[in-house]
Amino acid sequence: MINILFSAKPSVWGVYEAPLRRALDAEGFAYDLSRDHAPEAVDYIVFAPNGPVKDFRPYIHTRLVMGLWAGVETVVGNATLTQPLARMVDDGLTRGMVEWVVGHVMRHHLGMDAHIQGQDGVWRDGIFPPLAQDRPVTVLGLGALGAACGKALAHLGFPVTGWSRNPKTIEGLRCLSGEDGLTEALRDAQVVVLLLPQTPATENILNAETLSLLAAGAFVVNPGRGPLIDDAALLDALENGRLGGATLDVFRSEPLAKDHPFWAHPRITVTPHIASTTRPDTAAQVIAVNIARGERGEAFEHLVDRNAGY
Amino acid sequence: MINILFSAKPSVWGVYEAPLRRALDAEGFAYDLSRDHAPEAVDYIVFAPNGPVKDFRPYIHTRLVMGLWAGVETVVGNATLTQPLARMVDDGLTRGMVEWVVGHVMRHHLGMDAHIQGQDGVWRDGIFPPLAQDRPVTVLGLGALGAACGKALAHLGFPVTGWSRNPKTIEGLRCLSGEDGLTEALRDAQVVVLLLPQTPATENILNAETLSLLAAGAFVVNPGRGPLIDDAALLDALENGRLGGATLDVFRSEPLAKDHPFWAHPRITVTPHIASTTRPDTAAQVIAVNIARGERGEAFEHLVDRNAGY
Repeated sequence: MINILFSAKPSVWGVYEAPLRRALDAEGFAYDLSRDHAPEAVDYIVFAPNGPVKDFRPYIHTRLVMGLWAGVETVVGNATLTQPLARMVDDGLTRGMVEWVVGHVMRHHLGMDAHIQGQDGVWRDGIFPPLAQDRPVTVLGLGALGAACGKALAHLGFPVTGWSRNPKTIEGLRCLSGEDGLTEALRDAQVVVLLLPQTPATENILNAETLSLLAAGAFVVNPGRGPLIDDAALLDALENGRLGGATLDVFRSEPLAKDHPFWAHPRITVTPHIASTTRPDTAAQVIAVNIARGERGEAFEHLVDRNAGY
Repeated sequence: MINILFSAKPSVWGVYEAPLRRALDAEGFAYDLSRDHAPEAVDYIVFAPNGPVKDFRPYIHTRLVMGLWAGVETVVGNATLTQPLARMVDDGLTRGMVEWVVGHVMRHHLGMDAHIQGQDGVWRDGIFPPLAQDRPVTVLGLGALGAACGKALAHLGFPVTGWSRNPKTIEGLRCLSGEDGLTEALRDAQVVVLLLPQTPATENILNAETLSLLAAGAFVVNPGRGPLIDDAALLDALENGRLGGATLDVFRSEPLAKDHPFWAHPRITVTPHIASTTRPDTAAQVIAVNIARGERGEAFEHLVDRNAGY
C-alpha cells in the first residue's frame, strides 16, 4: 500500500480528488490517498505551498514531494525539505500559457486596444501593423513554458529569440544564453515575454539597463514572476517612450494593492495571475506517472535542482 | 514590348510603382508600365475597382485584368469586362489575415476585454477560460484566406470546422460543404469566422436561422464581407444571448455611418476594414509572375469564375 498525502487548501482537494483517483487507478498499484496520514507513514506528498505541510522533518520515509505549482520559489528555500522535490510540468498549464501569451502578443502586435477602447464612430482606415515577420519577439526562459510559447509565436511568423541561463537548442528559434546572450537577445526586441523561474539570478532581470536595449515602443508581457521586473524602471521606461505598453499577470505582492500605480497606468494592463493554471486532469496524470516511476525504481521526472532554484 | 496599364488611385501608384518595377525586372522581359497607355495597345491591366478604368471595351488586345484586391464583387458584374480577370491572392494579405483572425479569436477566447476595460483595482483571480481544445471554431470559406486561418487556429489547439460551397479537404480541419454541411458546421460552434466571397449565394448566410445554431454566447468575427451577415439578426442574437459578442471589420456600407448601432453596441467591436491588406512587395510579385506565365503561354493563375462570382 502506497500512502499519498494531499497537502493543499481544502478547495483544491475538492477539485483534485476525483482526477487524482482516476489517474492513480489507471496506473494499477494499491494506494491510500488522504489528507490525513501519519507523517512517518507517508510515501509521497502532493504539495501546494499554501497547504498545511510547512515542516517536512517528520516525513522521514517520504520518497518525493510533488508540487502542484509550476513555480517553486516559495518552497525551494525551506530548510526542512530534504526529500526530492518535483515541479509541476503540466501539459494543460503549458497549453493555457501558450494561448494567453499568443493572445496578448497578438493584441499588442495588432494594436487592438485602440479599437476596443475607441468605438467613437470615427472610421480610421488605412492603418496597418507590420506583418509578424517584421516584429521580433524575445522570450526570456526556455523551460517547458517558454519553449512552447516561443515555438507557437514562431509558427505564426514572428522572428523569435529565446534566452536561457544555459545553452539550449529549439527548432525554429534563435537561442541565446548567458550574460552576453541576454544583451543580444533584448537588443531591438519589439516584444519581450518573461517566462523565467524566480531565482536570485533572475530577480530584476528587466531593469533600467536591460529595458534600454529594447526597440522604442516595445511591449513587455509578464506571465512569469513579478520580481523578474524592476517595477520603477518599468514605469520610467513607459514614461520615456522606450516601452509602448505592458501586460502584467504577476507581481511582487499578490493580490496587487488597489493603490499600486500599475492599475491606473493607461499603458499597463494588470491581469490577476490568470495567464494559466494547472489543469486537474492533466496534472493528476503527471503525479500518477511520477509515483509509478518511483515504484518501478525509475528516476523521477521534473526534479528541482535545489542549487539552481528551479 | 509588353504594355502594362496601372489603373488605381494615384496614391496607390505611389506605393506600387517601385515594387512592381522590381518584380517585373526580375522576370526579365521588356515592358512599359504606365498609367497612360492607348487602350488598344494595352496587354495587361493592373486594376483596382476605384481606379479610372470603368469601361473595358476599348481594351481590345488586353489578355488579362489583374485585380489588386482579394474581393472582386464590385467588378465581376461589369458587363464591359470580357477579358479574363484574376483575383489578388497575395501571401502578404494572407499572413496579415491569419494574424488578425488569430488575434481576435484569442481575444474572445481569453475574455481579454474584461481586463483591458476593467482596470479598477479589483483582483478577480481564479477565473480561467477553457483550453482551446474545448472551444470549437468554425470558419466559413476555405479559399486561401479561410484555409490559412483554419490551419493556424487548429495549430493552436482549437477544434476547427471549415465550410465551403464545394467539398474540400484540408489537413487538420473537419471540412464540410453544401447546405446540410452548413447546418452541421454552425451547430454548437463557439466562434465563427467569416471568410467567404460576397456572392448572391453567400449574402445573409449568417441570419436568424443560422445564428440560432451556434452555442449560447458564441462570438462572430467577420473580416470577409459585410453582406454575409443579416445586421438586424446579429443585433437580435446579441440581445437574446445567442451571441456573446462580435468583431466586425467589413460592412454593407463603408465607412460605417457614425450613427450605425454597431458603433455603440457594448458587445460589438467595429474595426475600419483593416483586418488585412494587400502588401505591395508580395502583390507585385504575384502580378509579375502572372504576366510571365502569360508570355510563356502558360495558364494564368487566380482566374475568377464569372458564374460563381469569385
